[in-house]
Amino acid sequence: MSKEFVKEITTRDEDFAQWYTDIVLKAELCDYSSVKGCMVLRPTGYALWENIQKIVDERLKKTEHENVMMPMLIPEHLLLKEAEHVEGFAPEVAWVTHGGNNELQERLAIRPTSEVMFAEHFKNVIHSYRDLPKLYNQWVSVVRWEKNTRPFLRTTEFFWQEGHTCHNGYEDADREAREILEMYKDVCENILAIPVVRGVKTESERFAGAVHTYTNETLMYDGKALQITTSHHLGQNFSEAFDITFLNKEGKKEAVHQTSWAITTRSIGGMIMVHGDDRGLVMPPRIAPTQIMIVPIAQHKDGVLDKAFDLKEQLSADFKVKVDDSDKQPGWKFNDCEMKGIPVRIEIGPRDIENNEVVVVRRDTLEKVTMTLDESLNDNIAALMDEIHDNMFEQAKKRADDKTLETEDKDEFAAHIKEGGFAISPWCGEESCEEKIKENTMATSRCMSFENLDKDMSDKKCICCGGQAKHLVHWARAY
Amino acid sequence: MSKEFVKEITTRDEDFAQWYTDIVLKAELCDYSSVKGCMVLRPTGYALWENIQKIVDERLKKTEHENVMMPMLIPEHLLLKEAEHVEGFAPEVAWVTHGGNNELQERLAIRPTSEVMFAEHFKNVIHSYRDLPKLYNQWVSVVRWEKNTRPFLRTTEFFWQEGHTCHNGYEDADREAREILEMYKDVCENILAIPVVRGVKTESERFAGAVHTYTNETLMYDGKALQITTSHHLGQNFSEAFDITFLNKEGKKEAVHQTSWAITTRSIGGMIMVHGDDRGLVMPPRIAPTQIMIVPIAQHKDGVLDKAFDLKEQLSADFKVKVDDSDKQPGWKFNDCEMKGIPVRIEIGPRDIENNEVVVVRRDTLEKVTMTLDESLNDNIAALMDEIHDNMFEQAKKRADDKTLETEDKDEFAAHIKEGGFAISPWCGEESCEEKIKENTMATSRCMSFENLDKDMSDKKCICCGGQAKHLVHWARAY
Repeated sequence: MSKEFVKEITTRDEDFAQWYTDIVLKAELCDYSSVKGCMVLRPTGYALWENIQKIVDERLKKTEHENVMMPMLIPEHLLLKEAEHVEGFAPEVAWVTHGGNNELQERLAIRPTSEVMFAEHFKNVIHSYRDLPKLYNQWVSVVRWEKNTRPFLRTTEFFWQEGHTCHNGYEDADREAREILEMYKDVCENILAIPVVRGVKTESERFAGAVHTYTNETLMYDGKALQITTSHHLGQNFSEAFDITFLNKEGKKEAVHQTSWAITTRSIGGMIMVHGDDRGLVMPPRIAPTQIMIVPIAQHKDGVLDKAFDLKEQLSADFKVKVDDSDKQPGWKFNDCEMKGIPVRIEIGPRDIENNEVVVVRRDTLEKVTMTLDESLNDNIAALMDEIHDNMFEQAKKRADDKTLETEDKDEFAAHIKEGGFAISPWCGEESCEEKIKENTMATSRCMSFENLDKDMSDKKCICCGGQAKHLVHWARAY
Repeated sequence: MSKEFVKEITTRDEDFAQWYTDIVLKAELCDYSSVKGCMVLRPTGYALWENIQKIVDERLKKTEHENVMMPMLIPEHLLLKEAEHVEGFAPEVAWVTHGGNNELQERLAIRPTSEVMFAEHFKNVIHSYRDLPKLYNQWVSVVRWEKNTRPFLRTTEFFWQEGHTCHNGYEDADREAREILEMYKDVCENILAIPVVRGVKTESERFAGAVHTYTNETLMYDGKALQITTSHHLGQNFSEAFDITFLNKEGKKEAVHQTSWAITTRSIGGMIMVHGDDRGLVMPPRIAPTQIMIVPIAQHKDGVLDKAFDLKEQLSADFKVKVDDSDKQPGWKFNDCEMKGIPVRIEIGPRDIENNEVVVVRRDTLEKVTMTLDESLNDNIAALMDEIHDNMFEQAKKRADDKTLETEDKDEFAAHIKEGGFAISPWCGEESCEEKIKENTMATSRCMSFENLDKDMSDKKCICCGGQAKHLVHWARAY
């Protein structure tokens, strides 16, 4: 019974891209729409994003960040003000040219990101060092005209929070950008169970308009890397272009230092590709919209459904719980739980009730255990949820470690990149070498990891040109 | 001291429109942007919307509604599918014609509302009566090209939730549309302290594509009406145009019955115009982002700030509290609290601490009371918050009642409309009379209130043509 169902989706090793598409549709996260590259987020898909929102929003509010809302439309002249920025974004902008039946005097971009809108507003509200820092954030969608799209990973419209902050001085801005990266790391690891490598981007991979781009990089099941969150130190690029200045304590005019940073619906794509298996989605317990599905066995028998709903009530004090009381067979319901990645399934039938116990099946390992049906159950399930989270994280970490190779050998580098994973290899610092590596292996520089930043490079040679190396870089093919 | 500050804003009776603009800017709810008709929501302005979101979202989830997310872009051919709908919205649509450097093959509308996107998706996910009802909602912004805009009340981009549901049969859909209207009424009255009149729109004022539009109408300080929330019974207009069908229990194909409904950032405009006074904003306590501002008196003196922060901690268990420990004078801080409409201000200085008491000033009446500074304070403040809410609601209700006149006399009707307020007067049911009334008095039919629907009209004459009246209508000039 279970086997037939499994056949409904492609296996990961057969065709990872197809497996991904199958999961996204069969687990009912998304639907396609008639707008190319835009997805419909179905209730479970959107609930995942809502849960990420809730967690990140709480953390931002705790650290004195305030939510605001900028218009979604950006006049073309504003977008043109910061040179690097416009160069980076102009090719992917959706342009509004008509309002009603009238052609507009100036085209409006649907925001691809909102640095310039924030800059315009910051100029109005920042006057003195007393107004700093300004720590703003907004939860919105943005539009970037993408050629090749895939649900969650790369869509024309996608959802994110974008933080935008202004600071008195370089150090304060840099601390902010790094602290946000740490917060993202914690969300990735402790909520999504996805291990990340923290680091800084090389110049060619930086955000258009930033002085440093900090990044959390992670490996998917297929060995390709995903930039799961980034945090940019913008320096004074925008504040000088937009004249965002303040009087410092000495009464002198100074341009603010800025940051911007984001977590996006892409992180959900990462979660799917790190944890999913050939039976379907596997959701980390701390983010799952439904954490427990109760499946009644022989539900037509006296007392079974009552007991199932009593159990739901008991567990709902601590977890998000549903009962599947549809008229489908239990086997179908088990498969459905597996496809949808629900962390814990509880089976309860007449015999279980008689024995005062339930069968508890965890999604990550599919192991079954029997638990006593009394007030101890909530604590036992809570412990199990932590165990599931830890196991999912450990499995992902082990796989990422297995797929990470430090090498100074060109052939080994190429073979490892082809196989899939991070190659940690020295680099001379020249963009031409990054380009050559990309051309030859399709790998890009993902980051210079924080832990490798201070390494002695004096006897290291660039993996590409053989010249004196300056940095140890994580290289990989990437999404 | 207080007087000088009051002069900073226009008074309501002097120029209500200017007063409104002053409030919105000085209470730091909004900033203008360089996009015509689009506003920047500053932290307090956005927090008001977040609070409305939180309350409405909880109620929707409790009644089994699920959040989803449709793309913001709508292909032109989809918008054209439902004839009345496109006629209603086409003149105000913002059109995307270019993606990056390429002209699109088909123009895309930025959603002015999402009936057609939901319709397309519903067709994919509804097959059987078992799939009904589908109760969906999304929190987004929409864009409508407006000529005359005003922050919150009418902006090119505005924020809302839009609910879209599908039902098995007319009755089920109608019940949903009415239940949602009741929920909105409850939010308006018990959260925003705004009394509403519930009713149904005349045909000419219906949503483009609806069979019934239910509405909550309310009166502002100046006597103009505001449609603060609406709920539409769409019947089968969209389901027939989009072929959203299901197999009913008898195995026969049937088109679903639908509803759609919204609360928008407009409700914040209503809150300002109902409750604000000549000193500034007055926020209802249950929606205020800051409910209590503690103002330390002689804060340089030993122990005052410590005590103020202790008090903040105590009160934070039940309320949203801030301490204004800036280096401004207390008088300035009092005025600032009044301008920003913070429901309760607590003054605490050395003498208060000695006497173990605090001075509590409510924003609505500006009355001062002394309360004991001990653990009873939280309960006493909670009672005061309820009292403030009730008083604000009663004041608004009394004003609305005073400005509502039932009349069958044409001259009295015209005079009352000019004065400002609801005229409840009979109508023959002809659109030509609605048009004539609008031409002559600038009043529109706001609704046929539920309580007047069953009234005996046999001896009533239309206030316009004098012919046999069919309905009692609330008429008013409106925002």
